[in-house]
Amino acid sequence: MTATIIDGKAFAAGLRQRIATAVTGIGGRGLVPGLAVVLVGSDPASEVYVGSKAKMTVEVGMRSFKHVLPADVPQADLIALVARLNADPEVDGILVQLPLPAGLDPDPVIAAIDPDKDVDGLTNTNAGRLANGRPGLVPCTPLGSMMLIRSVIPDLAGAEAVVVGRSNLVGKPIAQLLLAANATVTLAHSRTRDLAAVCRRADILVAAVGRPQMIGGDYVKPGAVVIDVGINRIPAPERGEGKTRLVGDVAFDEAAAVASAITPAPGGVGPMTIACLLANTLTAAHLRRGLEPPVV
Amino acid sequence: MTATIIDGKAFAAGLRQRIATAVTGIGGRGLVPGLAVVLVGSDPASEVYVGSKAKMTVEVGMRSFKHVLPADVPQADLIALVARLNADPEVDGILVQLPLPAGLDPDPVIAAIDPDKDVDGLTNTNAGRLANGRPGLVPCTPLGSMMLIRSVIPDLAGAEAVVVGRSNLVGKPIAQLLLAANATVTLAHSRTRDLAAVCRRADILVAAVGRPQMIGGDYVKPGAVVIDVGINRIPAPERGEGKTRLVGDVAFDEAAAVASAITPAPGGVGPMTIACLLANTLTAAHLRRGLEPPVV
Ligand SMILES: NC(=O)c1ccc[n+]([C@@H]2O[C@H](COP(=O)([O-])OP(=O)(O)OC[C@H]3O[C@@H](n4cnc5c(N)ncnc54)[C@H](OP(=O)(O)O)[C@@H]3O)[C@@H](O)[C@H]2O)c1
Ligand SMILES: NC(=O)c1ccc[n+]([C@@H]2O[C@H](COP(=O)([O-])OP(=O)(O)OC[C@H]3O[C@@H](n4cnc5c(N)ncnc54)[C@H](OP(=O)(O)O)[C@@H]3O)[C@@H](O)[C@H]2O)c1
Repeated sequence: MTATIIDGKAFAAGLRQRIATAVTGIGGRGLVPGLAVVLVGSDPASEVYVGSKAKMTVEVGMRSFKHVLPADVPQADLIALVARLNADPEVDGILVQLPLPAGLDPDPVIAAIDPDKDVDGLTNTNAGRLANGRPGLVPCTPLGSMMLIRSVIPDLAGAEAVVVGRSNLVGKPIAQLLLAANATVTLAHSRTRDLAAVCRRADILVAAVGRPQMIGGDYVKPGAVVIDVGINRIPAPERGEGKTRLVGDVAFDEAAAVASAITPAPGGVGPMTIACLLANTLTAAHLRRGLEPPVV
Repeated sequence: MTATIIDGKAFAAGLRQRIATAVTGIGGRGLVPGLAVVLVGSDPASEVYVGSKAKMTVEVGMRSFKHVLPADVPQADLIALVARLNADPEVDGILVQLPLPAGLDPDPVIAAIDPDKDVDGLTNTNAGRLANGRPGLVPCTPLGSMMLIRSVIPDLAGAEAVVVGRSNLVGKPIAQLLLAANATVTLAHSRTRDLAAVCRRADILVAAVGRPQMIGGDYVKPGAVVIDVGINRIPAPERGEGKTRLVGDVAFDEAAAVASAITPAPGGVGPMTIACLLANTLTAAHLRRGLEPPVV
């Protein structure tokens, strides 16, 4: 079998297009969603992320607000900024770029974000809304992974899903979304015994581990859908001395020979994350005003 | 194999004893935990529950407050009572007895409870704390089920657990607790295909379905630990015309012939629920004051 390659880049571009259309639609009613991004310090990778988030926010017709604080900002000042953004009616979404510089504790900062503006879905309140099946804001990478899964399996009822990885940011929320879609869901992790056998049960296998190419072909049931959330940088001496390249948690070629559909990494789940951040900002702009969010 | 019968009644009595000792311990520092129970209307079953909760609260040395409102109380008055209990320094735990009479929506009432006094663990905040692995208040029946599991398997790391049922009150929080204890966890439900085969994978099988005796011996892997959360009333003509009796979700005799340990129903998980309500009140009394809760 040769697997269908799930093109996350193209899907994300289409999603941003649909978001832009929805933003134009509500713009006539004077509603322009706004996303505030808070960057603390000057980590180069974080600066790149924040830059592309701002660019895409503006491209879909939303307002983008960027707040940069020095790496040695007192915790209280950072929390005070979050409080001002909570109170600002032009701000629908607040994203504090993680990781924070050493010395700052992310937990109280996240807890300070108004759950209705928490477009990263990191607050306990949004995790609880997701667990309890209530409307809320779902972490972006899980939301994007789920959209890619649905693009190849519209009805997940009764399917066996295995999620490898149980982080609050990725594995656990993906499991909740799969469960809400009526899959039978197994959460596996570093303490799981015979991981390959557990994974081979899966009609839908999600890898969110952070270990380059650890999910080999022998972890994949023939015909399964494989979603590779991992982003890992590995040495690539074939590209020249000291060069590196990005790979996922899945050994792509092996897995693609067994699966029916698979995401590449990069170019699979990765591009969905920012697109879903914009989708969440659109959702927040609606929910906060008691409006039904559009389906994008 | 003849299974060990896990005696929930005895375990719960021991737990209440340990709670009473802990209450005596902090009493010397002037701290007497208080539990407020709100009963709306006069459903006989709810009155019985509320009565035994009050009795056991006093028996472990805590303060018990009972508030009874008429079945036709306006939603706003019920929420105003919750707000007063939130503000009352003598009240550490607030329990609104469910189900509420027709016409009252439980969601906004639950949402009104201060999460730090939410001893039923029903608020989104506590569901999210559990999902995110933060200190909080965990629903009582899942907490009690987990104590019984640990009484026979102290170390769950790597064990395969299957939970049948995915309610917010029982199935989902039990799955979170098993995951936090490093089991590999599968959540099954009414849409699961070949439920018996999924259950037969389980080293720990938890039934929280609400269907009398549906989990037969063929659902149980030899040597598994079986936890029966179900409480179902069925006709018992052998006891006389119109008589009924209580049974669990597990076909006890069949399952006990295959399992290594099993809870009876009644007399298994059931008695743990009130004991864990008292444990949660003790926990809340500590957490609210920034104190480390005792292990009971
Ligand atoms: N595409 C995106 O936009 C995006 C976004 C976020 C993350 N990611 C990527 O996704 C991956 C996971 O991210 P994360 O934040 O969830 O990572 P994380 O917090 O480090 O969690 C990793 C999870 O994998 C489990 N694990 C580690 N080694 C394992 C092994 N040998 N076998 C089975 N499970 C194992 C861990 O189990 P224990 O809990 O038992 O330790 C943990 O639950 C990373 O590669 C990350 O870069 C991508
Ligand atoms: N011991 C105690 O103190 C205590 C406390 C609370 C509850 N209970 C008892 O525990 C049981 C469950 O309570 P609950 O509140 O969780 O009930 P619930 O909200 O009705 O949930 C029942 C769950 O079972 C699933 N289910 C129903 N039929 C099924 C089938 N044929 N095969 C597989 N799954 C099936 C449902 O799946 P779907 O989601 O797909 O519909 C649902 O997730 C009840 O008997 C209740 O009386 C006992």
